Formats: sequence, structure tokens, C-alpha cells
Amino acid sequence: MNDLQPITHNPSLDLMLERTTHVPVELVWRAWTEPELLKQWFCPKPWSVSEVELELYPGGAFNTTMQSPEGELFPSEGCVLQVVPQRRLVFTSALIRGFRPQPPEGNPVGAFLFSGIVDLEAEGEGTRYRAYAIHGDSEGRNSHEAMGFHDGWGAAFDQLVELMSSPEFRG
Amino acid sequence: MNDLQPITHNPSLDLMLERTTHVPVELVWRAWTEPELLKQWFCPKPWSVSEVELELYPGGAFNTTMQSPEGELFPSEGCVLQVVPQRRLVFTSALIRGFRPQPPEGNPVGAFLFSGIVDLEAEGEGTRYRAYAIHGDSEGRNSHEAMGFHDGWGAAFDQLVELMSSPEFRG
Repeated sequence: MNDLQPITHNPSLDLMLERTTHVPVELVWRAWTEPELLKQWFCPKPWSVSEVELELYPGGAFNTTMQSPEGELFPSEGCVLQVVPQRRLVFTSALIRGFRPQPPEGNPVGAFLFSGIVDLEAEGEGTRYRAYAIHGDSEGRNSHEAMGFHDGWGAAFDQLVELMSSPEFRG
Repeated sequence: MNDLQPITHNPSLDLMLERTTHVPVELVWRAWTEPELLKQWFCPKPWSVSEVELELYPGGAFNTTMQSPEGELFPSEGCVLQVVPQRRLVFTSALIRGFRPQPPEGNPVGAFLFSGIVDLEAEGEGTRYRAYAIHGDSEGRNSHEAMGFHDGWGAAFDQLVELMSSPEFRG
């Protein structure tokens, strides 16, 4: 029942970052799923991530707090939807812990309302990495793109690769 | 990773219908997951369900069209989130097929924005049945209750029991 379904990419609604890296899938997966690692790469510098709460099961919390260079905090709550180790992680900002719809007062809109799909495939000893932002309408997609989706998710991915290339993660 | 998590029931945000029935879990599960069966009980008469599209995997569609006694059609789209056969089915109206957030123009609000959790446990040869409607705020919960949640979901459940008690389903 939890077979991996193909992702239907709709370019008019969805954004996608595709990369290949020498970092193996096991380490890309760890970077996404271990809060202490996620904090180190998830936000392009000079922004940072001050807190991560990640419950790695369907219905678990995926909460992050981003911090501006000036120290301002931007907490956001989301929900983990699907966990297929070393293969796929799905989460959304439309729900919070326990599959609960976002409270209307905190409901993300536009660029901030999306589901994220991280799709990994082993490619040689490295990884083919695809990260999708799935929006409900083209306005949301377009404002996410205008906010700098490709540069931002790309810079974060470069930070992931740098982090997971450090000697402590070598097999 | 798909271990069954306990459901955190928050009575100020959530509605819950609890029943026991002689119908075994295998048949309650079939009634919920086979479109041709679901159509026959899901809506309290004299309303009916004219169409069901159900893709039984995380990210699959859960689309239904309700029909009023006068023949007016009320289509709605949702997304399947978790499928644990004969144990738990989770879906939401906050997302549509492919984990996509609802388009803003069709976005359900108030009573219509909720995640549903159907939780089954074998009890003797029958089933202990719990169905939750998980809301983002108490206004949504309260308007769902005022719309007749308990009577409606209760009447639908009675229809399920009647349907699945028919001779054709006897082992």
C-alpha cells in the first residue's frame, strides 16, 4: 500500500530542483531527516535555522524556525506525510502535526502554501536529487519562484553537499 | 516508518463517532475502500453518492460527489494520506491528488476543511469503529457539529452496517 507512486510534475503549478551529487543517498537522507544535520544546511546563509522538530512518520510534525541575519525568528509548522527511507520524503504546510489542517489564523498562503517532495535515487555511488514544491495554483507557484525558489533551494542543496562531504561522514 | 501512531484526540477541535458492530474489520475496511460499496452507504438517505474516485495510497485521490434528493450535485476532492489495511485510513480535504494543496478557489473552509481518520480494531468477531474529523480551529469543529456531524456520520455508519450484513458478504 505504500508503494512508491510516480510524481506527476505539472510545471504550471510546481517548482522542481534537480541535481546530481557524489553524496550517497544514505547521507542525503540523513541530512534531510536528522534535525541536527537539517539545521546546518536547510536555509541559505546568512539566514539560519534555529529550531527543527521532525517526527519521521505520517502525521508527524515538521516544524522549523528560520532566523534572519538580524536575529528575527520565523517559525513555521508543517506535517510529515510519507516516509520511504532513502527514497522519498513528503511533507506539507497545509497540515500540522496529527494531519490537522492549519488553523486559519496561521494558514500559509501563496508561496508558503505547498507540499514538498524530496525524491532520491542512487546514481552510481552518488544521488540523483529532485525536490518539488507542489502548489495549489499558479499564483502560489509563481510567487514562490519570484521569491527565489531556484537560487534558495539550490544554495541550500550546495550547503547539504558541503556538509555531508565532510570527513566525519566518510564510510 | 509506517507504524501506527496513537491518535491525539482534542475534543475542542475534533469530532469523533465511536461505535461497535458485529461486522468484522475486513468488511468495514472493504465498505470504506471499495468505491462501489462506499457509494451505497457513505451519505445518509435520501442524499446519495453518485461518484467516488478512490486511489488507495498516500497521495491518491479521494473524490466524491454527493447528490441531494432534488438531484443537485456537490463534488468534492480530497487526498488519501495513510492506508493501513483493516486498521486505519486517513484522508484530508486540505489537499487533493498528488498531495497538492487545494486550489484557493475551491478551498474548503469551516466545517468542510478537515482530515478524516477511520480507526478500526477487531473486537471479538466484530469491530470497534472510531471515525474522527480533525479540524484546524474550534469554529470549524463547531460548525461541523452544528451541521449534524453525529447524526449524519451515525446514520451513514448504520447504512454501512446494514449493507455489510447482507448475505452476500457472509463468510
